[in-house]
Amino acid sequence: MNNSILLNSIYHKPIPHTPVWFMRQAGRYLPEYRKLREGCGSFLNLCKNPELATQVTLQPLQRFSLDAAIMFSDILVVPEAMGMELNFIENEGPKFTHKIGSPQDIINLDISEIAQRLNYVFEIIKNCKKELKPDTPLIGFSGSPFTLACYMLEGSSSKNYLHTKQWMYNHPELLHQLLDKLTQAIIIYLTAQINAGVDVVMLFDSWGGILTEQAYIEFSLTYLHKIIAALPKAKTPNTQQLIPKIVFTKGGGIWLDKISNIGADVIGLDWTINIGQAKSMLGQKAALQGNLDPAILAVGDKNAIRQDALRILNAYKTANNGSISGHVFNLGHGILPVTNPDHVAYLVDLVHEFNLTT
Amino acid sequence: MNNSILLNSIYHKPIPHTPVWFMRQAGRYLPEYRKLREGCGSFLNLCKNPELATQVTLQPLQRFSLDAAIMFSDILVVPEAMGMELNFIENEGPKFTHKIGSPQDIINLDISEIAQRLNYVFEIIKNCKKELKPDTPLIGFSGSPFTLACYMLEGSSSKNYLHTKQWMYNHPELLHQLLDKLTQAIIIYLTAQINAGVDVVMLFDSWGGILTEQAYIEFSLTYLHKIIAALPKAKTPNTQQLIPKIVFTKGGGIWLDKISNIGADVIGLDWTINIGQAKSMLGQKAALQGNLDPAILAVGDKNAIRQDALRILNAYKTANNGSISGHVFNLGHGILPVTNPDHVAYLVDLVHEFNLTT
Repeated sequence: MNNSILLNSIYHKPIPHTPVWFMRQAGRYLPEYRKLREGCGSFLNLCKNPELATQVTLQPLQRFSLDAAIMFSDILVVPEAMGMELNFIENEGPKFTHKIGSPQDIINLDISEIAQRLNYVFEIIKNCKKELKPDTPLIGFSGSPFTLACYMLEGSSSKNYLHTKQWMYNHPELLHQLLDKLTQAIIIYLTAQINAGVDVVMLFDSWGGILTEQAYIEFSLTYLHKIIAALPKAKTPNTQQLIPKIVFTKGGGIWLDKISNIGADVIGLDWTINIGQAKSMLGQKAALQGNLDPAILAVGDKNAIRQDALRILNAYKTANNGSISGHVFNLGHGILPVTNPDHVAYLVDLVHEFNLTT
Repeated sequence: MNNSILLNSIYHKPIPHTPVWFMRQAGRYLPEYRKLREGCGSFLNLCKNPELATQVTLQPLQRFSLDAAIMFSDILVVPEAMGMELNFIENEGPKFTHKIGSPQDIINLDISEIAQRLNYVFEIIKNCKKELKPDTPLIGFSGSPFTLACYMLEGSSSKNYLHTKQWMYNHPELLHQLLDKLTQAIIIYLTAQINAGVDVVMLFDSWGGILTEQAYIEFSLTYLHKIIAALPKAKTPNTQQLIPKIVFTKGGGIWLDKISNIGADVIGLDWTINIGQAKSMLGQKAALQGNLDPAILAVGDKNAIRQDALRILNAYKTANNGSISGHVFNLGHGILPVTNPDHVAYLVDLVHEFNLTT
C-alpha cells in the first residue's frame, strides 16, 4: 500500500496526479450493476451475499481507473444487525418495519452480536482485498450515529425529521442513550472492518446538516469525535499501515472549523462550499475530499463537467501553493442513477491528466 | 411608521424589544385559517380573492402581538401572471400544467401585463394597510428569479433539480434569458407593491442553496442584486419612508460575505448558522433576521423553545456589544403546519420580554 496515490495524498506526500473515487461508484448508473441486481431479489439480499457484493464492489474498478474501491454495503445494515427489521422498497428507499418509539425500544437494541451478524460485510472485505491490485485501497464505512438514529426514529428518510427533533428537543437524554449505543456498535463494526482488511474508513453523516450548530455539535459531531478517538492509531493487521479516517457531513460547510478539530484525516465537502476557501481556512489540518456537484455528472455535457472539475482542481491547487497533494477528488454526494458511465470515465481521465497539463 | 419597532431595528435605532414576525405566519397551523380555507375552493382562488386574502393576512395579528404583517400570497403567482397555468394539489404542492422546456417557452412568457394581472395582490395590500395599526409594517415579497425559474423548469418542487441544472450547465445563456425576464417582472411587481403601500419587501430565495458557490453567484445572487439596485431609494408614496429590502437564501449561510455585498438592508438566516458568528462577521453591514429551527416550534415543548430562542437572542446581543437592535426575530424557514398556535404565542411573548429580563 506504500504506493497508493490516495493514501499519499491524504498524508500530503508527493503524488503524480490527484486521486479520484466516487461515493456510490458501485450502483444503479452501471448497466452491469443493474443486470446483477435483477437476479438477486431484494437489495438487502445483495448486501448479504459476499460473492455478489464483491463483484459489485469491483465493477467500477474494471471500467474506470479509480484510485480506490469502496466496499458495497448500506449504512442501515448496522441497525438491522441490532435487531431492526429493514426493507428496501423499490423507488421509495429503506423502511424499518418498526421505528424506535420508546425508551424500551432503545434498551431492546442488541449490540452484543454486531460483529457476528455483520460477518458478511467482513467476508466482502476479505474477498475484495484478494482481487484488488496491491496499491488500490479499499474504503470501509459506516453511517454516523446521528444519521443512523434519524433513520431509526423516522423509520425511513424524511423531509423535516420531526420525530428525531421531538426526541432531541424534548428528551435529549434519550437521544443520547441511542447515540451512545450506536457509537459503541460503530466502533465494533469499524474495528472489525479494519481487521478484515480495509485501508481507509469513512463516516457518512448524511443528515447532520439539518441541525442548528449547537445541536450538530452536541448530537452529531461529539459522537463522530468519539469514534475517531476510539480508532486513534488503528493499523492494518498485515501491513501495519495507519488507517486514515474520512468524515463527511452533508451541509456541514459552515461548521468546517468545528469539524476540523475532531482528528479526522480527511474532511468530505459537499458541492456548495468553495474548496479553495476551505483549503485556505484549514491549511494542512486535514486533507479535503470533494466536491463536484453530482448533478453536473448526471446531466451536464462534457464541456460543463470539464469546466467545473477544472475549477475545483485549480481552486485547491492555488490555495495549496501550487501542490495538488492533500486533495481526493470526489463528488459532493453520491453518483445519481441517471448518470452516463461514459461521463464518469471522462471525468476520471480529466482528473488524472490535470496536473500533467497545467 | 416612525414608531415601527421592526423598521427601527432594521436601521439599527434604539428599540424597546426585539421585533418578531414569522415566515408563513398566516397559514395552515391556524384553525381560523383552515376554516376560511375550506370554504373557498382552490388555494389559488384564495390568493386571488382580495377580501379573503386580507382576512388571512390579518389573522395572526389578531392572535399574537407580532411586529409585522406579511401579505398573504404565493411566490408562484408571478409565473402564473406570465401565462403559466398553475394548480396547487392537496398534499403535493404546486404544479404547473406545462413546464418550461424550450427557448420558445421563454419567449412566450408575457411580462407586459404583469401589474394588471397581479392587481389582486395590490388590492390585498391596500385593504391590509387600512386595517393594520399605523405602526405595524406590512411586508411585501417575491420569490427570487432563480427560485421561480426552478419551479418553472421542474414544473413543481424537486429533489435534485436536474431539469434546472441541465439548462444551467449546458445552456447557461438560455437560463440567463429566463432569469432576465423574471427579474424584469419582479422589479415591476415589487415596485407596484410599494406603490400600493407595503413598508418592507422581502426576496425569498428558497432554492439558491442547491448550487455551487460559483453558480449561486452567477444564477441567483446577481439577479437579487439587480432587483435591489432597481429599487435603490424606494419610498412609500404617502409617508416617504425608505423601503428596506430583506434577502433570504435558504442554505446561504456559507455565502454570507457575498450576500452582504448586494445592498440588502436585512439578511435572512436559516437555522443552521450561528447568528452570533454571522453578526460578528457582518457588523453593521446589514440587519439580521432569524433564526430559530421551525421544528422546535412544531414539536418542541415550551422549555425547548425557550432555551433555543434565548440562545439566539443572547448570541445576537453579545455579538452586538449588548444591544438588541439590528435583529428581527423569525424562524429559519416557514412555520410548519403541525405547529401549536399556543407555542407561537409563547414565543412572541418570550422574544418581547427578553430585553426586559436580561
